[in-house]
Amino acid sequence: MLHAIVMAGGSGTRFWPASRAALPKQLLALAGSHTLLQDTVARLVGLVPPDRTLVVTSARLLDAARAQLPALPAAAFVGEPCKRDTAPCIGLAALLVSRHDPDAVMAVMPSDHVIGPVARFQAALRQAAALVDAAPRRLVTFGIRPTYPAESFGYIEQGATLAVGPGDAPAHTVARFKEKPPASVAAEYLAAGTYLWNAGIFVWRADAIIAELAARQPECLARLRAIVAAWDDPRCDAVFAAEFAAIRGISIDYAVLEQAADVAVIEAPFSWDDLGGWSAVARQRGVDERGNTVVGRHLGIDTSGTIVHAADGHLVVTLGLEHMLVVHTPDATLVADRAHEEAVRKVVAELEERGWHDVL
Amino acid sequence: MLHAIVMAGGSGTRFWPASRAALPKQLLALAGSHTLLQDTVARLVGLVPPDRTLVVTSARLLDAARAQLPALPAAAFVGEPCKRDTAPCIGLAALLVSRHDPDAVMAVMPSDHVIGPVARFQAALRQAAALVDAAPRRLVTFGIRPTYPAESFGYIEQGATLAVGPGDAPAHTVARFKEKPPASVAAEYLAAGTYLWNAGIFVWRADAIIAELAARQPECLARLRAIVAAWDDPRCDAVFAAEFAAIRGISIDYAVLEQAADVAVIEAPFSWDDLGGWSAVARQRGVDERGNTVVGRHLGIDTSGTIVHAADGHLVVTLGLEHMLVVHTPDATLVADRAHEEAVRKVVAELEERGWHDVL
Repeated sequence: MLHAIVMAGGSGTRFWPASRAALPKQLLALAGSHTLLQDTVARLVGLVPPDRTLVVTSARLLDAARAQLPALPAAAFVGEPCKRDTAPCIGLAALLVSRHDPDAVMAVMPSDHVIGPVARFQAALRQAAALVDAAPRRLVTFGIRPTYPAESFGYIEQGATLAVGPGDAPAHTVARFKEKPPASVAAEYLAAGTYLWNAGIFVWRADAIIAELAARQPECLARLRAIVAAWDDPRCDAVFAAEFAAIRGISIDYAVLEQAADVAVIEAPFSWDDLGGWSAVARQRGVDERGNTVVGRHLGIDTSGTIVHAADGHLVVTLGLEHMLVVHTPDATLVADRAHEEAVRKVVAELEERGWHDVL
Repeated sequence: MLHAIVMAGGSGTRFWPASRAALPKQLLALAGSHTLLQDTVARLVGLVPPDRTLVVTSARLLDAARAQLPALPAAAFVGEPCKRDTAPCIGLAALLVSRHDPDAVMAVMPSDHVIGPVARFQAALRQAAALVDAAPRRLVTFGIRPTYPAESFGYIEQGATLAVGPGDAPAHTVARFKEKPPASVAAEYLAAGTYLWNAGIFVWRADAIIAELAARQPECLARLRAIVAAWDDPRCDAVFAAEFAAIRGISIDYAVLEQAADVAVIEAPFSWDDLGGWSAVARQRGVDERGNTVVGRHLGIDTSGTIVHAADGHLVVTLGLEHMLVVHTPDATLVADRAHEEAVRKVVAELEERGWHDVL
């Protein structure tokens, strides 16, 4: 039986002002009526029981995450005292699940992606677990078949074909990992047909990833072991804070995957969207006959191709708008030309520079 | 010494959502730091004392108007129980000021125009009063020299030149009043050079306008007399409500001015703007180096030619906007292409149709 590690510490800036430092993307109901975090955990029902689910978030999001997931036990939540990227997060989770289950197989996943249907997602995780059963040191990743020459994703080059069971998705060894490429290189990857987007979803034995960290990030692992040794201790918070802060932040891809001996990639048989911005929200929610996507109370006159997201029953009226974005929250409103969607991140940087912390 | 009648019963829709049924244009600080009503009354200081000032508004705006003008006595406010256009309003005011001052000369003015400088405005009122002194049945109006072929104003055609004193503005008899013209006719008026915009500002003796109403609107005047007869009576509210409701709504232009024998027009020596919409606000407030006009807390990135009006410290961020309008209020926000500014009125009509009275 799998363990699930839900990584929920992200702090995006692409959805400001709907997302804030204290309410990042994964805690928002952007794509549907539930938050992305809630959807991520709901996607595990029937595959991973609540007592095998670990939600790793940042300490300041702990209360909000718990409030959104009342079905999970208190022990299912880990609040990192600071940001240290994915390797320390995953290493800590591996040590924690290993305490009571030395043979733990863990599925690691971000909490802010849109994935469906559930049955295919669960089947893919089961297939990954089978690949791990067959080769206990194997690290399994998931790749998404590219649909356009994306510059914003890392890529995985497929190597040798791996045997799969009937109904399983194609699986390969990983030839190599590729950083986010420039457009021309992304186009080559797309044309080659042997590159997949790195979805950041992994399945492996806890002892396997611990062994990899022991070999490649021994200091990191030692500090994580110190934290886990104090886990049920009154000193825990202080040890966690001190040791975690002393770890160098590094991604699991860079720390382990790019150098590991046996890495496999399953071509995801499920749909996947990392919801990288408001246009992705429109894609997920769909558009009306004028091409508008609306959440909240809205009156549109001569309005098309526009995304409106309004909270708390506030009325947004749009008049003569084409391809615009209007996001209203109680203390801040963003009005943007959708052609400038990528620059929403600049807004947050500018607000930080001005010291307008009340709206961050 | 003049009496001033400030007409403050208007209920515009061009400034929604900043303006509402309960908070129309004249009660807003659109052009500066004071409301248009406050500016209108302040413009009289030194010319008309508070106890000769009458603010005629609608009953439901009475409290708000009083709150904005604490220097005026309680008796300076009249709240009309329903809307009946300008003739009943002015007739009632004429009867009220005549009670204690049978020789009253009254200056009648809207409360939602931007006028300056004060000295020229007051000089023009004094000039008008002199014209009335010279001919007690004369009705004096003010005309604005057109600067473009406006379709949204009535026009006054200048007749014979009237003698004026040194430093006075040009004055003429009125040849005729013209309704709001189509564009081609407005262009002819502009080219002719003998047509002025009707500013809706008047000076006349109270007994003169009462005599005109007696001749042309006898039923209206009779009902107004019934109201004034009950003015200091406990029955006043009931009489006011019943009699005023029974009057046919009609403008003073249509009821009296277009037919009166002796009507003069002074070419206004002051600047005048009826603040017909948000672009007029930008004109009055001025624009920054990007052509933006901002009231409130705003961060603009790649934003030009845009008007932002935000209340209550709410932050509005604009990104990639050109020639747009963003008006934020606590319960409703309007985002419009400024090319559609005229259609803001359609928004209010649409909201009424939907029964969304909470935001009207």
